[in-house]
Amino acid sequence: MRNTTGNIFTLTTFGESHGSAIGGVVDGMPPGIDIDVDYIQQELNRRRPGQSALTTSRQELDRVELLSGIFEGKSTGCPIGFIVRNSDHHSSDYDNLRDLFRPSHADYTYYKKYGIRDHRGGGRSSARETISRVVGGALAKIALRSLYGIEIHAYTSQVGNIRLEKRYQDLNLSVAETNAVRCPDPLKAKEMERLIMSVKECGDTIGGVISCVITGCPAGIGEPSFDKLHSALGSSMLSINAVKGFDYGSGFEGVTQRGSEQNDLFINENGQIRTQTNLSGGIQGGISNGEDIYFRVAFKPVATILIPQPTVDKEGNPTTVMPKGRHDPCVLPRAVPVVESMAALTLLDYCLIAQMNH
Amino acid sequence: MRNTTGNIFTLTTFGESHGSAIGGVVDGMPPGIDIDVDYIQQELNRRRPGQSALTTSRQELDRVELLSGIFEGKSTGCPIGFIVRNSDHHSSDYDNLRDLFRPSHADYTYYKKYGIRDHRGGGRSSARETISRVVGGALAKIALRSLYGIEIHAYTSQVGNIRLEKRYQDLNLSVAETNAVRCPDPLKAKEMERLIMSVKECGDTIGGVISCVITGCPAGIGEPSFDKLHSALGSSMLSINAVKGFDYGSGFEGVTQRGSEQNDLFINENGQIRTQTNLSGGIQGGISNGEDIYFRVAFKPVATILIPQPTVDKEGNPTTVMPKGRHDPCVLPRAVPVVESMAALTLLDYCLIAQMNH
Amino acid sequence: MRNTTGNIFTLTTFGESHGSAIGGVVDGMPPGIDIDVDYIQQELNRRRPGQSALTTSRQELDRVELLSGIFEGKSTGCPIGFIVRNSDHHSSDYDNLRDLFRPSHADYTYYKKYGIRDHRGGGRSSARETISRVVGGALAKIALRSLYGIEIHAYTSQVGNIRLEKRYQDLNLSVAETNAVRCPDPLKAKEMERLIMSVKECGDTIGGVISCVITGCPAGIGEPSFDKLHSALGSSMLSINAVKGFDYGSGFEGVTQRGSEQNDLFINENGQIRTQTNLSGGIQGGISNGEDIYFRVAFKPVATILIPQPTVDKEGNPTTVMPKGRHDPCVLPRAVPVVESMAALTLLDYCLIAQMNH
Amino acid sequence: MRNTTGNIFTLTTFGESHGSAIGGVVDGMPPGIDIDVDYIQQELNRRRPGQSALTTSRQELDRVELLSGIFEGKSTGCPIGFIVRNSDHHSSDYDNLRDLFRPSHADYTYYKKYGIRDHRGGGRSSARETISRVVGGALAKIALRSLYGIEIHAYTSQVGNIRLEKRYQDLNLSVAETNAVRCPDPLKAKEMERLIMSVKECGDTIGGVISCVITGCPAGIGEPSFDKLHSALGSSMLSINAVKGFDYGSGFEGVTQRGSEQNDLFINENGQIRTQTNLSGGIQGGISNGEDIYFRVAFKPVATILIPQPTVDKEGNPTTVMPKGRHDPCVLPRAVPVVESMAALTLLDYCLIAQMNH
Repeated sequence: MRNTTGNIFTLTTFGESHGSAIGGVVDGMPPGIDIDVDYIQQELNRRRPGQSALTTSRQELDRVELLSGIFEGKSTGCPIGFIVRNSDHHSSDYDNLRDLFRPSHADYTYYKKYGIRDHRGGGRSSARETISRVVGGALAKIALRSLYGIEIHAYTSQVGNIRLEKRYQDLNLSVAETNAVRCPDPLKAKEMERLIMSVKECGDTIGGVISCVITGCPAGIGEPSFDKLHSALGSSMLSINAVKGFDYGSGFEGVTQRGSEQNDLFINENGQIRTQTNLSGGIQGGISNGEDIYFRVAFKPVATILIPQPTVDKEGNPTTVMPKGRHDPCVLPRAVPVVESMAALTLLDYCLIAQMNH
Repeated sequence: MRNTTGNIFTLTTFGESHGSAIGGVVDGMPPGIDIDVDYIQQELNRRRPGQSALTTSRQELDRVELLSGIFEGKSTGCPIGFIVRNSDHHSSDYDNLRDLFRPSHADYTYYKKYGIRDHRGGGRSSARETISRVVGGALAKIALRSLYGIEIHAYTSQVGNIRLEKRYQDLNLSVAETNAVRCPDPLKAKEMERLIMSVKECGDTIGGVISCVITGCPAGIGEPSFDKLHSALGSSMLSINAVKGFDYGSGFEGVTQRGSEQNDLFINENGQIRTQTNLSGGIQGGISNGEDIYFRVAFKPVATILIPQPTVDKEGNPTTVMPKGRHDPCVLPRAVPVVESMAALTLLDYCLIAQMNH
Repeated sequence: MRNTTGNIFTLTTFGESHGSAIGGVVDGMPPGIDIDVDYIQQELNRRRPGQSALTTSRQELDRVELLSGIFEGKSTGCPIGFIVRNSDHHSSDYDNLRDLFRPSHADYTYYKKYGIRDHRGGGRSSARETISRVVGGALAKIALRSLYGIEIHAYTSQVGNIRLEKRYQDLNLSVAETNAVRCPDPLKAKEMERLIMSVKECGDTIGGVISCVITGCPAGIGEPSFDKLHSALGSSMLSINAVKGFDYGSGFEGVTQRGSEQNDLFINENGQIRTQTNLSGGIQGGISNGEDIYFRVAFKPVATILIPQPTVDKEGNPTTVMPKGRHDPCVLPRAVPVVESMAALTLLDYCLIAQMNH
Repeated sequence: MRNTTGNIFTLTTFGESHGSAIGGVVDGMPPGIDIDVDYIQQELNRRRPGQSALTTSRQELDRVELLSGIFEGKSTGCPIGFIVRNSDHHSSDYDNLRDLFRPSHADYTYYKKYGIRDHRGGGRSSARETISRVVGGALAKIALRSLYGIEIHAYTSQVGNIRLEKRYQDLNLSVAETNAVRCPDPLKAKEMERLIMSVKECGDTIGGVISCVITGCPAGIGEPSFDKLHSALGSSMLSINAVKGFDYGSGFEGVTQRGSEQNDLFINENGQIRTQTNLSGGIQGGISNGEDIYFRVAFKPVATILIPQPTVDKEGNPTTVMPKGRHDPCVLPRAVPVVESMAALTLLDYCLIAQMNH
């Protein structure tokens, strides 16, 4: 519960935005897997602030230090502890926030829950918490690739009203990593970037959708009842800051259709049982069927804006949140590796659970 | 994991569609609460097949027997075991399904996972599994009402393309229980019923959306990281058969907006800190803020249709699923109490967890 | 937590001594295993009251009804629900206990925990709760035997001061089932029976030790840190009513020895790595090493005696517990199958967890 | 599971003997508690090697760095990450152990479980893992004292055949911290020290017993079935390296007694319900009754001895473990704070769980 995710393969995280370090423990990593530390650092670089004009200019080097569980380049099966030191902390920047509640942040709810709060940059509720998710996710991706040949690709599919119309099957997803907005359609990417830059100039923020595709997942992964594979993926995605919705396969759009349109017919394709269509999104009855798994994740515009906003303080007195510092006009480009990471953490856990059935 | 949901307040379920009984164990029920057994039976009646022309005509009495954990009309704090006997099982009806995979059912994936399957009426993957959820949910509702004054109301807000345009604030939600489709707008309800009946005549099925509103939830309920309150609610909803999507607050629609439009400003309302708008859906940073919690759940059309469909058998040979028996043209009316039940189970668990903070 | 044991293979139990039924849910049973329902009933008969002059004369038929998870004689991988109806409940027998606390029973602590109590025969804290453990344990034994060839044998090794001096290696453990006290040494068994009968005549009770041996467990089962195999076995044993201690291998007796005496030297026995001695009790660093696992479980004399005892009531007023009804002079003979069951539940869980490592 | 202990209040640990750091994450720390960092360091100093002639001469400074979850001197309710750097690692010292299995160590079982092993100083199975337990335990002690007034005192009660005859009630437990062996009876302490020094001179090791007393625990803490308070304490103790047994209250010695001797009669002491004797060890039916909780923990002699021992290598070839470096003749003095820590971790978890009942 709380700051641990997973059942068999778990990630436990700690750390605040302006504390001395962010970190975590990955437990249940299968032994004997080659661990490419550079790859983990690269994944972390994909979520780093300041990597393009589209994101916050907060500069963090974010170097990961792996402290255990790896010996002579391989995982040992023992827990992998890691830390990432915080370097750019000007806590005093936040002194004006000590006693007021920023709109649509977690300030008020943390205060109601804990009766105490760390006001520096959102403390634990800051997006910096996702650093630990990306480190854990990178380890999970390594294991998924090594043990099962599973690959996970997320990309920005909508920013504001600009929406990718093409299906993922008609796109080269690797193109996403060639532009700052992480959209696999270069023309749409340009439009999205222009929108984000115009929103940024207003000191405002904009929401959007990240889509994610998992290829190579064998059939039979998932639990039948409360822990369906898509329940776990949905829960993981909804645990990312600013996420407001999740659907998979035909999702919310499929509700207008009839069963005769939605059912995926089974066929025999060169001796292998496949489905003709994949509106199920690779999951039936909560268990993977061997087709691609795909889903969408809705992000609201982030709450920090460079525009004055009325609010109240701890005593309920009216006051104003004044803009200060930097802001992230659109969280999606940096959230792409976080979506992949959460998908990887969840899927590896479920793949390992499935090993117990046979 | 698997057939248990919850951390502190848990429901464990068992039972197949055509076995001798469906049942479960509710653990962690707070002691000393008056248990109204009739209310639990009424809740079960709300999900019973055959209650209107809109649903399957399968007739089941579905009488719940509570076996433990209640003494002299009150919960004792000990686990509450219960069973509901299956009465209408013509297992031989399903003999033709023994070796083939019905499209978009769990037949194929269960077979890949377990290497064995109970082909009678879907076995464990049948919607009858939700009987246990409704019994557990009714107990959770009783505790939520008794301990916190929390109420949960779900209703059908969309069937196919027929969509309720009004916001929940502008509706009398109790009206939902006065019509067969469980929609709080009587005119829309009529339209939805007509659509469902026409779909039924075709032997087809139709999807839709159930909306749910939770009132009276105090601020401070929820966990900060992986177990945000909306992650848990989303996971619960996605674990219901046929659910393809979940969003809360402004959800998928809010992604086109800007932060300055989406932020809920804090105000002082008669000495109480409230928000001016509630696009957050009552949850900020994963923790309740005292406003109404509301969310949407997308249901695909159910897979059983009375139309022949091509498929393959276990060996991959082409064959046909021939229509047989009865079908449920739209699962939504009967799913309304299931949505409420899963919300209640999750929320009570989180309310009890929150008691440990202070 | 609470009424569930296990991680991957779990047993959840419910039921009070004088409610309508005792029961539970076994989840995570591997699919495709032949389930011998008669064997499960036989195991239940081994713990049944009234089976010999040594135990309570309370008569219960204790017929188990398996409700799900088994199809055409095999486990399906779905949860197995079961109930055992209570037949011999004269609740009014206990009316005199409604407001007083019996010495060394759970009456007082349940009252302090729950603020309410079911005074009929101890309610949930009654030894009848072990019925569910024996049913779950029988299923676990079937799986352990079928999948791994593991066998578990428990026996009475001490009653009062009468102690089996021989090591388990020098005994034929199957002899234990041929006498009422379940001791594999027929002469000692006679002595123990005489002691128990003399204690019974006094209306008193006597404690003792049950020893347990697990053969056929492969090396590599167990978790390295908090969940060592012997931690889990110890926890299981300590959860049985009246258990006050647990040790394994050389246990409490080994503390007087030196490392040079206690270390089990590795040898090569016909190409297999074995240990020369087995003071480790088959577990090193919390993980099985392939040798026999053996441990001891200390039982106090049960608290119900047929002798008047001073006590207090809920208001703290002095009163007397008057002897009434029947009593169990020595719980050990009937606890033997419970010890085996808890060992089986724990070990199967750990064996399944170990399957994820490779 | 695995490297996490606790349900609501949890400790997750990582780190190997000769890796770069040992550390962990404490989650579920109640907010608003004053955290005395010096106290945590002092606790760590109590388990540090090299603190007296009785222990290993391995020198480690073992400075703890707390990385999160504490703000302005108080716990925030967010997870507390911490690390302790390893300083004295001469990994090459262990090169001779790379391919052989040390007797009664975890070398062989880890190899069978993981197929890989970190041979440097035992890797993860080293007693250095208890550093994380002591840090977590110190935090738990702070919370137990602050929230409930609970105190925990462990002490060495037996070394080899030298055994403390006095009951804990007849001793001043604080005297234990005034001698190197941590025994509250100064005369027995001297005897124990002499025995340990003589064993050390032989290059051998010796076992013993640690006793532990918990005062101030309110009634009503514990779970009724599988998670009885003493089951959890037993499991915690058995998870400490070299522990072979656990008993509480009258324990193994009480098995020879009769119920009429063992039952603790309830009395009214100045308006408070108490028991006349406390053979129950403060726990009845798995739940605390408000009396002192006390238990014993059996430690075998540690396996590392400075005497050559025959063994086999990975291929099963006979070889010899040659003595090298330093050794710890008796682990008990340094294990005293570890016993207290595990008791504190378990008890705080259970106290927090109990808060949910009312």
